[in-house]
Amino acid sequence: MRRDGGGGHEDDGAPGSVVTPSAEFPPLAEDEVGALRRIGEQWCAGDGCPPGPPELPVDPSLRRHRAAPVPSWFGRLAPIAMFEVGDPGELVATEPANVPGSRLGRSLTRIRRGLLGPPLTSAAVLYERMRKLVALPVLSSDLLSSVAYGPEAMLAVLVLAGSGALGLSLPLAAVLAVLMVAVGLSYRQTVVAYPHGAGSYVVATDNLGVRPGLAAAAGLMVDYVLTVAVSVAAGVSAVTSAMPGLARFTVPLGVLIIAVLLAGNLRGVRAAGNLFVWPTYVFVLAIAAVLVVGYVRAGARGFEPVPPPAVSGAEGLGLLLVLRAFASGAVSMTGIEAVSNAVPAFRPPEWRNARTTLGWMIGMLVVLFVGLTVLIHLDGLAPKPDVTLLSQLARVTFPTGPWYGLVQAATALILLLAANTAFNGFPRLLFFMARAGHAPRRFLHMGDRLAFSDGLVALSVAAGVVFVAFRGHTQALIPLYAVGVFLAFTLSQIGMVVHWRRRRNPGWRRRAGVNAVGAVLSGLVLVTAAFTKFAAGAWVVIVAVPLLVLLSLTIHRHYRTLQRSLALHPSPDSRRRRPAVAPAPLLGAEERGAPAEAQELPQQVRHLVVVPVARLNRASLRALAYAVSLGQPTLAVHIAPEDPEADLFREQWEAWGDHVRLEIIVSPYRAVIGPLAHYLEALHVSAPDVLLTVIVPEVVVRRRWHRPLHSRAEQRLRRALQALPGVVVTSLPVHLAD
Amino acid sequence: MRRDGGGGHEDDGAPGSVVTPSAEFPPLAEDEVGALRRIGEQWCAGDGCPPGPPELPVDPSLRRHRAAPVPSWFGRLAPIAMFEVGDPGELVATEPANVPGSRLGRSLTRIRRGLLGPPLTSAAVLYERMRKLVALPVLSSDLLSSVAYGPEAMLAVLVLAGSGALGLSLPLAAVLAVLMVAVGLSYRQTVVAYPHGAGSYVVATDNLGVRPGLAAAAGLMVDYVLTVAVSVAAGVSAVTSAMPGLARFTVPLGVLIIAVLLAGNLRGVRAAGNLFVWPTYVFVLAIAAVLVVGYVRAGARGFEPVPPPAVSGAEGLGLLLVLRAFASGAVSMTGIEAVSNAVPAFRPPEWRNARTTLGWMIGMLVVLFVGLTVLIHLDGLAPKPDVTLLSQLARVTFPTGPWYGLVQAATALILLLAANTAFNGFPRLLFFMARAGHAPRRFLHMGDRLAFSDGLVALSVAAGVVFVAFRGHTQALIPLYAVGVFLAFTLSQIGMVVHWRRRRNPGWRRRAGVNAVGAVLSGLVLVTAAFTKFAAGAWVVIVAVPLLVLLSLTIHRHYRTLQRSLALHPSPDSRRRRPAVAPAPLLGAEERGAPAEAQELPQQVRHLVVVPVARLNRASLRALAYAVSLGQPTLAVHIAPEDPEADLFREQWEAWGDHVRLEIIVSPYRAVIGPLAHYLEALHVSAPDVLLTVIVPEVVVRRRWHRPLHSRAEQRLRRALQALPGVVVTSLPVHLAD
Repeated sequence: MRRDGGGGHEDDGAPGSVVTPSAEFPPLAEDEVGALRRIGEQWCAGDGCPPGPPELPVDPSLRRHRAAPVPSWFGRLAPIAMFEVGDPGELVATEPANVPGSRLGRSLTRIRRGLLGPPLTSAAVLYERMRKLVALPVLSSDLLSSVAYGPEAMLAVLVLAGSGALGLSLPLAAVLAVLMVAVGLSYRQTVVAYPHGAGSYVVATDNLGVRPGLAAAAGLMVDYVLTVAVSVAAGVSAVTSAMPGLARFTVPLGVLIIAVLLAGNLRGVRAAGNLFVWPTYVFVLAIAAVLVVGYVRAGARGFEPVPPPAVSGAEGLGLLLVLRAFASGAVSMTGIEAVSNAVPAFRPPEWRNARTTLGWMIGMLVVLFVGLTVLIHLDGLAPKPDVTLLSQLARVTFPTGPWYGLVQAATALILLLAANTAFNGFPRLLFFMARAGHAPRRFLHMGDRLAFSDGLVALSVAAGVVFVAFRGHTQALIPLYAVGVFLAFTLSQIGMVVHWRRRRNPGWRRRAGVNAVGAVLSGLVLVTAAFTKFAAGAWVVIVAVPLLVLLSLTIHRHYRTLQRSLALHPSPDSRRRRPAVAPAPLLGAEERGAPAEAQELPQQVRHLVVVPVARLNRASLRALAYAVSLGQPTLAVHIAPEDPEADLFREQWEAWGDHVRLEIIVSPYRAVIGPLAHYLEALHVSAPDVLLTVIVPEVVVRRRWHRPLHSRAEQRLRRALQALPGVVVTSLPVHLAD
Repeated sequence: MRRDGGGGHEDDGAPGSVVTPSAEFPPLAEDEVGALRRIGEQWCAGDGCPPGPPELPVDPSLRRHRAAPVPSWFGRLAPIAMFEVGDPGELVATEPANVPGSRLGRSLTRIRRGLLGPPLTSAAVLYERMRKLVALPVLSSDLLSSVAYGPEAMLAVLVLAGSGALGLSLPLAAVLAVLMVAVGLSYRQTVVAYPHGAGSYVVATDNLGVRPGLAAAAGLMVDYVLTVAVSVAAGVSAVTSAMPGLARFTVPLGVLIIAVLLAGNLRGVRAAGNLFVWPTYVFVLAIAAVLVVGYVRAGARGFEPVPPPAVSGAEGLGLLLVLRAFASGAVSMTGIEAVSNAVPAFRPPEWRNARTTLGWMIGMLVVLFVGLTVLIHLDGLAPKPDVTLLSQLARVTFPTGPWYGLVQAATALILLLAANTAFNGFPRLLFFMARAGHAPRRFLHMGDRLAFSDGLVALSVAAGVVFVAFRGHTQALIPLYAVGVFLAFTLSQIGMVVHWRRRRNPGWRRRAGVNAVGAVLSGLVLVTAAFTKFAAGAWVVIVAVPLLVLLSLTIHRHYRTLQRSLALHPSPDSRRRRPAVAPAPLLGAEERGAPAEAQELPQQVRHLVVVPVARLNRASLRALAYAVSLGQPTLAVHIAPEDPEADLFREQWEAWGDHVRLEIIVSPYRAVIGPLAHYLEALHVSAPDVLLTVIVPEVVVRRRWHRPLHSRAEQRLRRALQALPGVVVTSLPVHLAD
């Protein structure tokens, strides 16, 4: 099992970025299988083991009983009927076996399935291959949609220096176009190098190491969260620009949209590929129409720019402001990663199709971005607080007719798709991080709709919090946006440079050069954005990224400890046998066996069964019967609050027949859990090689409100004993009729 | 063990109202001991039992290891040193054994002990006997303090009909005096009849049955809560009358006082008896001084009443208003129960001393109440919103000098004591109710300071909520007050009438007559209060009392079910032996033994140990070793998300050596808990006489924040299995180093 990296690689054939439900159960490594084999050879070796266990009292494959199924205790389908005999002989759980037994659980499951649809089997994981004409709109929605707020973000900074500064948007757009092309070329190379998919996390981890990889991942995580928040905010703005009456519902509307996106993705909308095709095309066509009509009109007046409305500058026009405007405009480039993540989803030859698609996308981005910026300049538009620039432009271009509404609707729709892109990318990123042990392992689990439910929920909650905190205000979110994205870009490009340098394939210098240019340009944008927008909000990201990296590293350390504790290795005491049937009691310290928690072979385990008895009743007698029937040494313990009670209890014990050795502990301070736990600890200390099994009868009540009527001493005892090494707790349930 | 009633009785010698820590462990009834004896005779009878268990591998009395104690795993006192060998040979837990092992728990314990003092042993329960001169002030603070707000409560109603109606206070006071004497005489008889203590709950339950007893108890519970709320409110008023600047802190001041009372009672202030003596005497002397000086002054002007300030009536003066004023004045009688509860605390002859003390108390109450009412009339005082009547009176009586301040301070202090009375009474009431199974059993438990912590906390929370809800306004609370008190009085007196009628001792008619008069008068006040103050707040109590009774009955029903489920009776299947060493596998339904949860003798238990294995690692191999070492039939279960994973797992299993029968269940919907639980259910259904022991390795993390990194599948599995009959869950801990 690969522990770090976790990403695919062009040289190893492993489907590094393929998402499988089995990732939760990684196979054993070679050396672990070897250790397993050696452990197996020592298993029950010698005479220390109990005599061969009797045959099973049931048929585990349930075949014998299939003929006459008894109805379930839960009153539903007979439980035996929930399992079918599969092909190679093992049982297969049918769908009803997933429904919880409790009534509440069943109701919740029914509601969830009503909302999200019936469960999907693992076999339904589809690796659908996309044609380029489908892949283009599906993958580009995030990238192209950002032209809906990118030019405005740039102009909103420039206008701070007065309307005279707005003209600077033209040279800035030119620089941004160069940047786009450079980063695009750079990514084209990444696609070729990583045909199994090449997110920044994978590329940076692979080439630069764990920490840069995690930094890229943290940047991407922030980016995904902000993609959702910004796209939803911009989408809501597109709607409220057309329908100002809705403006005061911005926050609830946005939260609703995020909830709908969550529900849709929990349901698993991967099969809806074709549905994703047309909003992107409609958007591109709508913007193209705006451009064509706009330039025709501008041409009619000789491309004479309309002077923008006079706005007096609040700040002086300095280099800092220009750089800030540049960094703000650079957010238009978010979403470029989508293609490089999705290389395996293309039809073969994957890398070539992906590269072509990427080229088209960059081309369209440059045309739309530059075209819009220039047209806005020609029409003399300036940012307004309530109406987006794109909406102003559409209104100027199509003063009458349904066209304006169509542009706004297409904008809102593509922004929704863009947000949805993050819902695909974020859980996948967490999946890869979790597979490498850098994120909680729960992100490996596919829900019953084959969606990574935990990742989806985490993204929605984070995006929802950000959205509400910024009251759904797009321009306030922009300063946070660029830093995460360009951090990931930069690290990914640097990683590619290292990649080429290491291989030194023919032409590596040229390739490394292209990526180096991309890295330098991205890095410049990153530094610019971090500096110029620090106070405006970028500091949040600059603080969050190292914290996320630290968190990932701490998580990784914990999992490594766990893995080391659980890793298989032949037991060092494997040749020590458990003493034969009657062990010499009370061995001296030097004669002792392995400590209780290191006993890994049956013949090593020395038992002492302890039964705490508060009162002699059916529950405690059942516990005693259970303990004795195990055939191991048994000790009963009673905690008495006073001496008289202790005497009384001993009398009753003798009336019963004194079948089990009894130890009474007087607890003059009336505590039960503390003294019992410490007594067990004392037993453990006096014989560390003995495994204590504490048998606790546990009254199970049917109704939730009955619980406060019971002391729940069992739970408290279990918690108190949890920290003790070598203490096993057995809960013997006692079910009440009502 | 007595199941209902629970109170003492003059004829049985049981200390019915003595509070003991052993009440949590009631002794077995005669027939239960008999059943126990018969069960003991069948224990391991025949050849079905495993061969005699080997000797214990440890010394349960810890003697052998006492010489060289090993330091505790928790890094404190060596756990063996925490236990001493007691007198009759059993172990005694020393005080350190009560301290929890976890660091958080230890810190909390240290803080709590700093606030509340070190723990007290059960032997420290003191049954201190009180002299009459001590008993009088200790027991009468509740009763006498109510003159601080009683007359005002009456006048506050009368003034609604204008200042002319205030004169009616004189005849009303006379009627109330008669009522006080009648109820007092009635209670004198109760004291004699119930020398072990005679709360209304006990008397009513004993003579009228469970439901009236619970109604009395509910009335008393409401009464105790309101005693705290009203006394604290009146005490704060006494302070703010003297220092008006504090008036806006009324609510936080009151909450603070309740918190201090709670802390003091959790600490256990029972030894502070002498401290309780002087505030009562000071208060009585201060009021007496007010009365003497006031009457001397009034005498100087020929007892000519000063006309009260003219207030126009808001309501007409009708019978309803007069009755309401009467019912409001009757709240002065709250607290009369204190003596009858506390009979055993008097020096012998208890009943005579208690009766004498009660006589004095009633006498003092009548003198103070009537004296104050008349003097208020003579001085022409009327209720004001910001200053209490008693404060006005003190100011009029002592216009200069420190005397006014002294009166106010003494009033505030005795009101605090009165509130404290409820802190004694309420947990005792709940203790008796819990002993009879009418309240949650946790109220039987004495905390380590010998206080009923749960009862104290419940009272404080309830009183705090009421206090805050009424913004600490005394007069707003009064309408709620009378109903509960007089309900308890009435039921208690009716109970006494029945008591005398049943005995028919000489003179029973006269005694029954006295109690009947008390009952009728109390009943009239009850009805009056309920009707006239219904809308003003009494409805809350009238709704709450039946709900409390219903709750008590439901709790009782649950405990009865529990007791019936746990009661000892010889097993019906006791003569069935467990089949000898190798049972015939897969018995037909008709050959089966007792169902798994009815197996109460070791020879009846048929085992199947089930080990769910997700992955082969040290934890699961330890679980397998543990299972096999028990020497019982063992089955391993693996849940696979896909067929390929299942095949891979089987390969590894065979590499290990296939030492345990393995069943693989493919769960195509990737759920683990559901299919596993249903599979176990299916096993149970296919062989209901087999007890399934599920062994779950449980990773124990040291740090709380590590928990989200683990799936906590064990807990979820345990919850899912809890409802299944015949499934035992064994948690095998795996401790991580960090």
